[in-house]
Amino acid sequence: MKFYTYYRSQAAFRVRIAMNLKGIAHEDTYLHLEKGDQFDPGYKAVNPQMVVPTLIDGDTKLFQSLAILEYLEEKYPNPPLLPKDAASRAWCRGFALINIADSHPLIVPRIRHYILDDLRLGQDRLNAWIGRWIGAGLAAMEALLAEHKESGRFCHGDQPTFADIGLVTQVTPARNFNADLVPYQRVMQVYDTVMAIPAFADAAPAKQPDFEP
Amino acid sequence: MKFYTYYRSQAAFRVRIAMNLKGIAHEDTYLHLEKGDQFDPGYKAVNPQMVVPTLIDGDTKLFQSLAILEYLEEKYPNPPLLPKDAASRAWCRGFALINIADSHPLIVPRIRHYILDDLRLGQDRLNAWIGRWIGAGLAAMEALLAEHKESGRFCHGDQPTFADIGLVTQVTPARNFNADLVPYQRVMQVYDTVMAIPAFADAAPAKQPDFEP
Repeated sequence: MKFYTYYRSQAAFRVRIAMNLKGIAHEDTYLHLEKGDQFDPGYKAVNPQMVVPTLIDGDTKLFQSLAILEYLEEKYPNPPLLPKDAASRAWCRGFALINIADSHPLIVPRIRHYILDDLRLGQDRLNAWIGRWIGAGLAAMEALLAEHKESGRFCHGDQPTFADIGLVTQVTPARNFNADLVPYQRVMQVYDTVMAIPAFADAAPAKQPDFEP
Repeated sequence: MKFYTYYRSQAAFRVRIAMNLKGIAHEDTYLHLEKGDQFDPGYKAVNPQMVVPTLIDGDTKLFQSLAILEYLEEKYPNPPLLPKDAASRAWCRGFALINIADSHPLIVPRIRHYILDDLRLGQDRLNAWIGRWIGAGLAAMEALLAEHKESGRFCHGDQPTFADIGLVTQVTPARNFNADLVPYQRVMQVYDTVMAIPAFADAAPAKQPDFEP
């Protein structure tokens, strides 16, 4: 598959984890989001939203990380990244969506740039913004893990699911922006468990060829 | 099913559309988000994220609107709200996620309140914020409809899917906040088509018992 990616993108990170777990080979094209590669007309023709990731599987062009995860789960079902029963699947998807649809959209580059360059609020208020919304998501995840009977080493059951992928892409930016992670012990236990798995560890931003220290 | 909702919530609106299309009966509990009902400890025990909607199906507690749509699709498959083939399913999910995971999280009440009450940026800059991010999502949707061969009266194919639900909850707040919709003719054609369907129309905020003019 052909994969348009940027090392720092948490959305691309999610898809890398799923491809690694399922053993899917991919040829990467690197876009530098801070330099604006995503606004190149050539890439706009690939992805009208001008965001990463985009995944091309034969004639199929895939966009939006969660839609890509669902596609990979349907076409490459082994190993499964969702449980079998509908209620557990909903829990795993709902947990992942706290990252994908609540916290993460608030801290992506376009929002950080708008806050700094258009609203000119300064780095301190940007940091407070990031800390507030990352923290709200982490608190919700911690509460869900505490009440969910099937949580333990993983978010749900005894193997990785979409929920663990969403947990990782919640914690990674929290660390990048120096959020306090001490209150989220259950979250951090799962994070340490899954990041010890090569499929997760090898997908990390710092392991990508386009990584910049 | 038991449904915790607020008339103005676009996330609750999505779930109402799906329940109406599938003919699922529900008993509603109304939370007034502007008055802070969602922060009541009783509701926090139901939904640790303190957001709507929550849907209770027997012993199963469901949260996050897209996870709820997927659950309803799996347990109550008729009529289907996703096409059959994996590529088309991914397109419909990806399209819906432009609303669910990119635009909408930026304009929910907690963000509007933070911009007005914490950052004290004023109504004009809040309106510019809302217009910018709603517009970016509408432009992406318009471009996707233009290039997608199976778009027409509906976003995909000849019946409603998750994509149409995401389109509706993109246009409705755009109207509420007086965004310019003229550039998005394809989007608006689909909007007019689906809002003529009772399952969509009856789910609209203004039709809910807790609606406030």
